[in-house]
Amino acid sequence: MNILVLNCGGSSVKFQVFDMPSERVIAKGMVERIGKTDAVLHYSSARQEAQQRVMPISDHKAAISMALSTLTDDDSIGAIDAIGHRLVHGGERYTGAVFIDDEVLSTLKEYAPLAPLHNPPNALGIEACKQLMPDIVQVGLFDTALHQKLPDYAYTYALPYRYYEKYRVRRYGFHGIAFTDITERTAQIMRKPLNELRIISLMLGSGTTANAMKYGRSVDVSTGLTPLQGLVQSTRSGDIDPAAVTYIMRQEGLSTDQMDDVLNKQSGWLGISGVSNDLREVEQAAATGNERARLAIDTFVYSCKKYVGAYAAAMGGFDVLAFSGGIGEKSSHIRQKVCQGLEFLGIELDQEKNNAGIGPRFITTEDSKTKAVVVSVDEELVIAQQTYDLIDREGR
Amino acid sequence: MNILVLNCGGSSVKFQVFDMPSERVIAKGMVERIGKTDAVLHYSSARQEAQQRVMPISDHKAAISMALSTLTDDDSIGAIDAIGHRLVHGGERYTGAVFIDDEVLSTLKEYAPLAPLHNPPNALGIEACKQLMPDIVQVGLFDTALHQKLPDYAYTYALPYRYYEKYRVRRYGFHGIAFTDITERTAQIMRKPLNELRIISLMLGSGTTANAMKYGRSVDVSTGLTPLQGLVQSTRSGDIDPAAVTYIMRQEGLSTDQMDDVLNKQSGWLGISGVSNDLREVEQAAATGNERARLAIDTFVYSCKKYVGAYAAAMGGFDVLAFSGGIGEKSSHIRQKVCQGLEFLGIELDQEKNNAGIGPRFITTEDSKTKAVVVSVDEELVIAQQTYDLIDREGR
Repeated sequence: MNILVLNCGGSSVKFQVFDMPSERVIAKGMVERIGKTDAVLHYSSARQEAQQRVMPISDHKAAISMALSTLTDDDSIGAIDAIGHRLVHGGERYTGAVFIDDEVLSTLKEYAPLAPLHNPPNALGIEACKQLMPDIVQVGLFDTALHQKLPDYAYTYALPYRYYEKYRVRRYGFHGIAFTDITERTAQIMRKPLNELRIISLMLGSGTTANAMKYGRSVDVSTGLTPLQGLVQSTRSGDIDPAAVTYIMRQEGLSTDQMDDVLNKQSGWLGISGVSNDLREVEQAAATGNERARLAIDTFVYSCKKYVGAYAAAMGGFDVLAFSGGIGEKSSHIRQKVCQGLEFLGIELDQEKNNAGIGPRFITTEDSKTKAVVVSVDEELVIAQQTYDLIDREGR
Repeated sequence: MNILVLNCGGSSVKFQVFDMPSERVIAKGMVERIGKTDAVLHYSSARQEAQQRVMPISDHKAAISMALSTLTDDDSIGAIDAIGHRLVHGGERYTGAVFIDDEVLSTLKEYAPLAPLHNPPNALGIEACKQLMPDIVQVGLFDTALHQKLPDYAYTYALPYRYYEKYRVRRYGFHGIAFTDITERTAQIMRKPLNELRIISLMLGSGTTANAMKYGRSVDVSTGLTPLQGLVQSTRSGDIDPAAVTYIMRQEGLSTDQMDDVLNKQSGWLGISGVSNDLREVEQAAATGNERARLAIDTFVYSCKKYVGAYAAAMGGFDVLAFSGGIGEKSSHIRQKVCQGLEFLGIELDQEKNNAGIGPRFITTEDSKTKAVVVSVDEELVIAQQTYDLIDREGR
């Protein structure tokens, strides 16, 4: 079965075709700069080498149409049997993959104010597929679904309860698709079933999220009502005094939209350092003596360290700390700084494995009571798997 | 030396006279409902039994004048030699007790927007004393002073750095006077000097704050720019997604002032439960099956537990967990719930000592690797001590 996985963002569409259940990637590509006259299509498959084409692409429908015709033109790809969509904010409604129907579309619209960069393009992607491939079954997997089993005391904010009743203001948590993959890969390395492990995952990319997975159940996650809360991120503030929001608005005369922009796009390690939203550049600046860059890194690392401690307390201890995402996989320096001082939790870093190793692996010593691992993450594969499983189970 | 300690709040003035250095309390009282026609003066001393008088008291100057004449009329009290003020928000300027001068007054005014309920009455109290007792030396101790030695990565928010430069937006932390006392009393029970201990303190009153004290230095504190951040409090939200602030403002059409009111006065365990800002009443409601009351308590306890874990990670482990404040001292139930699941950190609660004991004590077993204690707190005594020490050292 050929499953097309679509990930529709604000100005890009990523697509990938899997042969399932073999999990073999048949083709993969991306359309960037949607809405511009110099949009770019990247594409590669078993038959075709990586190629790029620049052209005007007006909207998501045109982008998906371009992706589909590229796939159709490639003789190495058979017919698409199903489409799996990466969706972002599903509110309280979904705990796993679902067939896409009107209710899913209305949920995407309902929660668009909480995920303005993601839910609207998600809906556009679904609509475009409906028009272009009306007979193909569509499945969606929400990034919030994994965290729908959080205990109520972990997702409830200490706000007037009416805001939960009226607007469903609560912690949702994101990156659920990634954490599904990270924790499964961690269990493989640990050679234990997921339901026998307490895993703290640090998904450290441009977005950064921490997750506590206790015996197969997501029991806490650092992101909240929106992806803003929690760890210091590239351009998002993470945890601050909520009163700092109103204080800054008042001092600067900012509207709520302007303040959201400050919190989401001008903050994080970019905000502290003033150097870059790319942590590698911040690290380089710190290495040459830039004091604000040093401070940005220390603040980011400290936020990771505190979440590890908090989630250890939440689970009554833990068995393994997993690093993933671009930074989590590639920066031995950040991993080392996070683990420094966590010896009392049983983590004994193996410098050599941390610095010199490649790929998924343990980075703690063999005697380390609590383990730390590095794993890669493949969200598209999770979507393909869950799409395949749902169709297999429900028989469409 | 007779030291008068003054704690001027929004509508009350608490006062206490200490004989120093003996630390004996000579007299103590409070004026409540300042500005009302039925204000109340409470007073007691060695010579006079506890008494209450109801009368109109127009402002802080009148309240302090009333307190002073009550002291003068009481033959058992000698002359006042010095005044120690409890001050709240001192920004980045003070790390300990200071003689009050124009700079202190202007600091109080400068930081009034961040502590609107406390800094203005603090300043009024100082002005009133200047007029009524112009020759008596005045000393101030800020609640933020203890936390001025936080590492920069613990006090920096991941916001655009210009907000720190322009408005000094950062974590300050409060309850420093209380934590000074709590950690000293904890060290006494531990029979070790403060600088050999890593102490996590949970100050649980109507305001609730967690503190990490590493070898005598405050290295982290849960309150932030204002007292709002951190643990779930009686009517303050503690940590939430900062984006929830702008989201609710937008949904409800609230101004920044209205939103501050929601976050500070309508949230916390009152907000979740809808029952009371008094945790005892919330606990009673939970015991009779009120589901939102149960949720409020669980959410509050969970926030405490996560901070214990986070601060353990911040200090590379810890030696003792101290409970204080009205709830911390009196609710064995809350202490038990907080400690439950922290066995992996070496905490082994002694049920009997926790439930049946009275006063300052260990509540962990003798074998418990990490200790937990209950201690009382006396902020007025700390102010008297530090006022005395400053005068003794600087010779005024």
